[in-house]
Amino acid sequence: MTETETRPATAGRPTPTPAAGVYLYPASFERVIALLNSGIDGLAADSAYTRLHVPPVIARATIEHAGYVNTFPQLLGTVHSFAGTPKEWARLAPLSDGSGDWHAQQSISDVVLLPAACYPVYATLTGRDLATDPALFHVDATCFRQEASAEPGRLRSFRMVELVTAGSPEHCVRWRAGWLERIPAWLGALGLTVSVVVADDPFFGPGRKLYAAAQRMQELKFEFTATVAPGIVQAVASANLHKDHFGDAYGFASGDEPGHTSCMAFGLERIALALIEVHGPDPDGWPESVLSVLR
Amino acid sequence: MTETETRPATAGRPTPTPAAGVYLYPASFERVIALLNSGIDGLAADSAYTRLHVPPVIARATIEHAGYVNTFPQLLGTVHSFAGTPKEWARLAPLSDGSGDWHAQQSISDVVLLPAACYPVYATLTGRDLATDPALFHVDATCFRQEASAEPGRLRSFRMVELVTAGSPEHCVRWRAGWLERIPAWLGALGLTVSVVVADDPFFGPGRKLYAAAQRMQELKFEFTATVAPGIVQAVASANLHKDHFGDAYGFASGDEPGHTSCMAFGLERIALALIEVHGPDPDGWPESVLSVLR
Repeated sequence: MTETETRPATAGRPTPTPAAGVYLYPASFERVIALLNSGIDGLAADSAYTRLHVPPVIARATIEHAGYVNTFPQLLGTVHSFAGTPKEWARLAPLSDGSGDWHAQQSISDVVLLPAACYPVYATLTGRDLATDPALFHVDATCFRQEASAEPGRLRSFRMVELVTAGSPEHCVRWRAGWLERIPAWLGALGLTVSVVVADDPFFGPGRKLYAAAQRMQELKFEFTATVAPGIVQAVASANLHKDHFGDAYGFASGDEPGHTSCMAFGLERIALALIEVHGPDPDGWPESVLSVLR
Repeated sequence: MTETETRPATAGRPTPTPAAGVYLYPASFERVIALLNSGIDGLAADSAYTRLHVPPVIARATIEHAGYVNTFPQLLGTVHSFAGTPKEWARLAPLSDGSGDWHAQQSISDVVLLPAACYPVYATLTGRDLATDPALFHVDATCFRQEASAEPGRLRSFRMVELVTAGSPEHCVRWRAGWLERIPAWLGALGLTVSVVVADDPFFGPGRKLYAAAQRMQELKFEFTATVAPGIVQAVASANLHKDHFGDAYGFASGDEPGHTSCMAFGLERIALALIEVHGPDPDGWPESVLSVLR
């Protein structure tokens, strides 16, 4: 395979491209994704979630303001462009086939790649008091993280659906407790063997280890793991408490205190891979018991 | 509106974010997008298109190889990340809230933002002779172009569906001629007032003007324009001939010559905006004649 070739799709699974962790998705895989979206719609049907489709880029200022940059500097993709003059470009142009550093004068833009689907929603709550009237969002987006590995399911570009709430501390803890009960049952009904693990995000650098341990002790992040390829177990969903992090950053409240937030995140490709691993690539052939949960 | 605030959605139209040309999409707008996808599925139903969902990033090598960089250096978004050591990050970390150049050590990665949905498919054809057996693809993706303007519909992040074919020169000319007839009728049946214009892409720099004129004379690009906001007319779709550009770059053939390619591109947000401009934001209230074309 040359650097610019792409392999044909095999058995409904994502097609690798020359970029590790970046795949093309064939029709049958997309049918699984559509079924999953329908299944999550079903999970969200009992509350009035505000639905938003989120683009794969976001204002850099929003991500800086959210504190993401210092937490995951190695995972954030920044978007750069050539903002020079035609004369300056004329000097770089002969290198533009990749034979040299045509990108020597790229400068950073005002957008970055979206690291998680929920980031744009917190800013819409500025100024609100959510003590008795929590906010609920149902968002979907394609996210990007500059992951080093290229094992199956370890994607750099991936689709995420999130259910998000903002309100009082008690509301957020109760809301997440509901998902902690419901999601293992839901994934189990889909035929997946699921484990629930207390997790920490892979914080950067040795100075972060203490914080990660503290995060684990507070049980802020629960991950639901499943087998996405032979011998490879990954988190396919997570239920998270952010405490007052976003309320503090974006100025929304629960009474006299900053508002709390919580989210339930679904990794669409990973759940799809796990389902294909168990039931095969073509959803038309899946057990009716599984399809009835999703439709 | 502060730098990190986002306005609430109004009347089903996209919600601005702090980044110009980057919007959030409310539920009713997404219903319009879903209807459009269904309508395009209908248009494509008479041939066996290979369906692929394409992620919003693509291998930089693929885009360099396709000759995109020198044609549109000012529009391409490159993805950069921090690949330094924790010690190097420790010096930048205090600036990571946006108070300074925390991004001073970002380095270019192996991916760029996808400028058009069709770019990954040409590489899948390497080595094939398409003289009597043309290839057909139906792809969808979120694309990015670093556009300067922020008028409605002039998006930087936008969704595109493309029907793509590769084969003999005659096949590609005939295939596009079919769309040149069909698309104005289709957009007309949707209630849009459409013009067909011979166009050239906004090539960069004064040296490009002659090439753009030559492109216009060869009628390689036809755009279908419609009103997307009061007084604002934009291209909502285009039918393009690339001649042997991609066959030459990716080594697929039509007999003894490089294969030709052609594509029919749909700008989903722009068509949606044009439809909303005519029929209102809620598709439930649209004329049955329009809905029947899309369903």
